[in-house]
Amino acid sequence: MKIGKGVEWAAHACAILALLPPGAALPRDALAAFLGVPAPYLAKQMQALSRAGIVSAQPGVAGGYRLFRPSEDISLWDITAAVEGDAPSFRCTEVRRNGPCGASSAECPGPCDIAAAFRRAEAGFRETLAAVPITDVVAGATRVATDARKQRIKDWLHENATRRA
Amino acid sequence: MKIGKGVEWAAHACAILALLPPGAALPRDALAAFLGVPAPYLAKQMQALSRAGIVSAQPGVAGGYRLFRPSEDISLWDITAAVEGDAPSFRCTEVRRNGPCGASSAECPGPCDIAAAFRRAEAGFRETLAAVPITDVVAGATRVATDARKQRIKDWLHENATRRA
Repeated sequence: MKIGKGVEWAAHACAILALLPPGAALPRDALAAFLGVPAPYLAKQMQALSRAGIVSAQPGVAGGYRLFRPSEDISLWDITAAVEGDAPSFRCTEVRRNGPCGASSAECPGPCDIAAAFRRAEAGFRETLAAVPITDVVAGATRVATDARKQRIKDWLHENATRRA
Repeated sequence: MKIGKGVEWAAHACAILALLPPGAALPRDALAAFLGVPAPYLAKQMQALSRAGIVSAQPGVAGGYRLFRPSEDISLWDITAAVEGDAPSFRCTEVRRNGPCGASSAECPGPCDIAAAFRRAEAGFRETLAAVPITDVVAGATRVATDARKQRIKDWLHENATRRA
């Protein structure tokens, strides 16, 4: 069971985009440099976020990524589902129906206890992540950052963000 | 994010092994036939269960698989961890330390809110599965099985199980 590192990147990307002033965007290469991750791989995650309506991507010199909706409306589950898909991790193939003693339809009124337990476990997993908006991630990171670093980030964003004409 | 189907097979395998009378074992091919899954792939999952001390595998004509500990002491998490590994699904690569504005050690007293949320989500996932012993899975399946099917399973086990001399 693995969550690709694209999820970590995408979450951190949303957190930095949440700091952009209104109307500003961050070009792909600047975003990748800020996060210290390879731009082509990051672009893949950003495409997934864009398809999910979490970020928007403007082409051109004044283009780049920005959040498409307020950061309080983007949860860690939204980002995980965008990057990894939201299909259940456990896929029940109804093994109980197989073989010489397979259960009949009448004996399978609902999911078996194995499938039901995984559904509950996954629902809890989703709910925990859905309860954490990017706003909280940004607030947590801001709380531990020194004033010097906050200023460095602000300056860097000012230098690297693009703006609509 | 995916859980391999080997987990489903392994869980069902443990459930049927829980029905064996004391001293009996089920050969690999019989177990695969019962579950309606390919024997070589199932063998891989059974090896993982064996390494985790969940089943034991006896070689030879009177050999086969049996549970190595009582079914109430085998949870769906034990089986998942045996087959998929128990490493965290989300691996934090400390992206916050990267790039031109990377956080210093002093600014990282604990995991960031992203990593912390995934830790909580995964702990909940584990706990939900850990609360379901194979005993419960067997009881649930028995509850919905017809008497005819229970007898068919009993007969099939009688025909296919091996016994220590």
